Amino acid sequence: MTESPQPAAPFVPGPGESVVVYLEPDAGPAGVGVKLRVDDPRRPAILVTDQGLTRGDGVFETMTAVAAEGAGPGSGSPLRVRKEDSHLARLATSAQALEIPLPPAADWQRAAAAGLEAFAAGNPGVDAVVKLVASRGPEGAPGGGHHVRAEAGVERLTGTYWVLVSPVSPGLVAARERGLKVLLLDRGVDSGVAERAPWLLMGTKSLSYAVNMAALRYAASQGADDVIFTSSDGQVLEGPTSTVLMARRIPQQDGSTGIELVTPLRSSGILPGTSQGTIFAAAQAAGWQLGYGPLEPSDLVDADGVWLVSSVRLVAPVTHLDGEEIPQDAELTELLNNFLAEDREPGEHGP
Amino acid sequence: MTESPQPAAPFVPGPGESVVVYLEPDAGPAGVGVKLRVDDPRRPAILVTDQGLTRGDGVFETMTAVAAEGAGPGSGSPLRVRKEDSHLARLATSAQALEIPLPPAADWQRAAAAGLEAFAAGNPGVDAVVKLVASRGPEGAPGGGHHVRAEAGVERLTGTYWVLVSPVSPGLVAARERGLKVLLLDRGVDSGVAERAPWLLMGTKSLSYAVNMAALRYAASQGADDVIFTSSDGQVLEGPTSTVLMARRIPQQDGSTGIELVTPLRSSGILPGTSQGTIFAAAQAAGWQLGYGPLEPSDLVDADGVWLVSSVRLVAPVTHLDGEEIPQDAELTELLNNFLAEDREPGEHGP
Repeated sequence: MTESPQPAAPFVPGPGESVVVYLEPDAGPAGVGVKLRVDDPRRPAILVTDQGLTRGDGVFETMTAVAAEGAGPGSGSPLRVRKEDSHLARLATSAQALEIPLPPAADWQRAAAAGLEAFAAGNPGVDAVVKLVASRGPEGAPGGGHHVRAEAGVERLTGTYWVLVSPVSPGLVAARERGLKVLLLDRGVDSGVAERAPWLLMGTKSLSYAVNMAALRYAASQGADDVIFTSSDGQVLEGPTSTVLMARRIPQQDGSTGIELVTPLRSSGILPGTSQGTIFAAAQAAGWQLGYGPLEPSDLVDADGVWLVSSVRLVAPVTHLDGEEIPQDAELTELLNNFLAEDREPGEHGP
Repeated sequence: MTESPQPAAPFVPGPGESVVVYLEPDAGPAGVGVKLRVDDPRRPAILVTDQGLTRGDGVFETMTAVAAEGAGPGSGSPLRVRKEDSHLARLATSAQALEIPLPPAADWQRAAAAGLEAFAAGNPGVDAVVKLVASRGPEGAPGGGHHVRAEAGVERLTGTYWVLVSPVSPGLVAARERGLKVLLLDRGVDSGVAERAPWLLMGTKSLSYAVNMAALRYAASQGADDVIFTSSDGQVLEGPTSTVLMARRIPQQDGSTGIELVTPLRSSGILPGTSQGTIFAAAQAAGWQLGYGPLEPSDLVDADGVWLVSSVRLVAPVTHLDGEEIPQDAELTELLNNFLAEDREPGEHGP
């Protein structure tokens, strides 16, 4: 008779199911490494004392993985993570702001690859959402967490770390194709707060998203699909889970038409968008002009198109602001989605 | 051979250990009830898809339980929860703001009593911290959560609910006796934001506490013990985990000295303090004058005493504001602690 709750065979999710890979600190003879454990996310794994849960004290990233070109059975995972470097860089920046020790990027990549391999085995041909989470770990309870003795030169990995791989929700695609009715909602802070008050964690992707979720519920109660936050001094900031883009067609002296693509000012405390970064890199290569705000709501109304961009829903056009229809441009929407699909390194335009 | 990971005997924590009681929705013949499950909090119980964890999307309360008068072996739990009604009322208010369905107060009371009984069995004579948590529960994953079919008149209890009972940390008592060096930190929002922007969840006790924790880390990095948040328009708000009180001694016409006790304006978006409520009720009975702000930092400097009050650390005097020593009054500190110990119903003064 064994008491071990672990199955001997590696977990493979069924169609439509998810898989989780835990990154567990492991002190071996060569120092502290990270051991991967692939498991069923329907198996409880987190302690009620985990500070990610009790304090929203952690950071995350949400990436997508799509069919890799030339991949086939036997060639390893047939899925390729998009913008992985940008997401890992932003995860590290967020973790640094919260002072949460993080396993090296290579371990996150290994974990994502292991999760994608298991996911693809049960879901051939299905695109995936890949979520990376690092929490501060359990409160002091002895034996409660992943406490690893500090070694010379090795940071203590005292947090809880995992990668969740799930199928892309079909609802997001429908929302993107339908376009978004958006409410402008006051975020309560002024646009200078990020620079003077670092303890407010503006521009970091923490697990404390209750306000973002409440804003989306408020929008839904008003018949809207999404939200653009504004600062108390009237600047356009960001969506609760997306970055704002707007474009203007500008007549040139030679009679042609140029395009200017603008995103809000980053120093106003918004999260640097990984999708915005890669789109800007492609737009620059295509000869578009790039702008970085500041933007006011009237700029959005006067634009030729406004979009909310994010890693899973991609480029979704805004059709209404506060109940009023705004200009839309299907050609620009297609161009932006194509830019995003180029998967360029964002360089100076990214996080 | 059984695969059940549950022990047959009820869990009793050892000395210094904690116990958790889960409130699990249970559809029986009489409708949906709540079944209690007592367990070891070192056993993982939460899914990685729980929105309390992935979005800080949940609410909580922290109460204390102290020796009940006249209690002894065989008389049930020897511990009595302080201000239980105030905490349960505030939990309900927070859950309503976040639109999270909540089990009835009586079930929380049963769960707390069950946890305290188990805790006291392993920790005789030890005061306890009793934490109540309600999260929104797992994201859509089928089979992943406590999904209960809606019945006529019964709200769907789709969240995750538990009570954690732990020993009081000795560090808190030491901090209270030593007094607190406090930094004033900008909360980034103005004092009118709560009324105009309900989606910001000001004044609700959500699990999204990453900023509160970051502010405390920032204070520690500056050699301070705690924080008082101020609004962007210069009003005193609250501590990250406490309520601000200040007192002034006021000469009366008959030659005696009266005392005025003041707490910041509640409409400025602060959490209504359960300790503040019960202290105010006792202070009123003792003939003190009561005030409800607005307060500015200069009011704190000019006061005869400033305190941060909370349910576990109780009444802790502030000794320094931004590095400058401020007046302290040991007699007032003792009076306020005695007021709190009276455990009065806060009535109009509480949450």
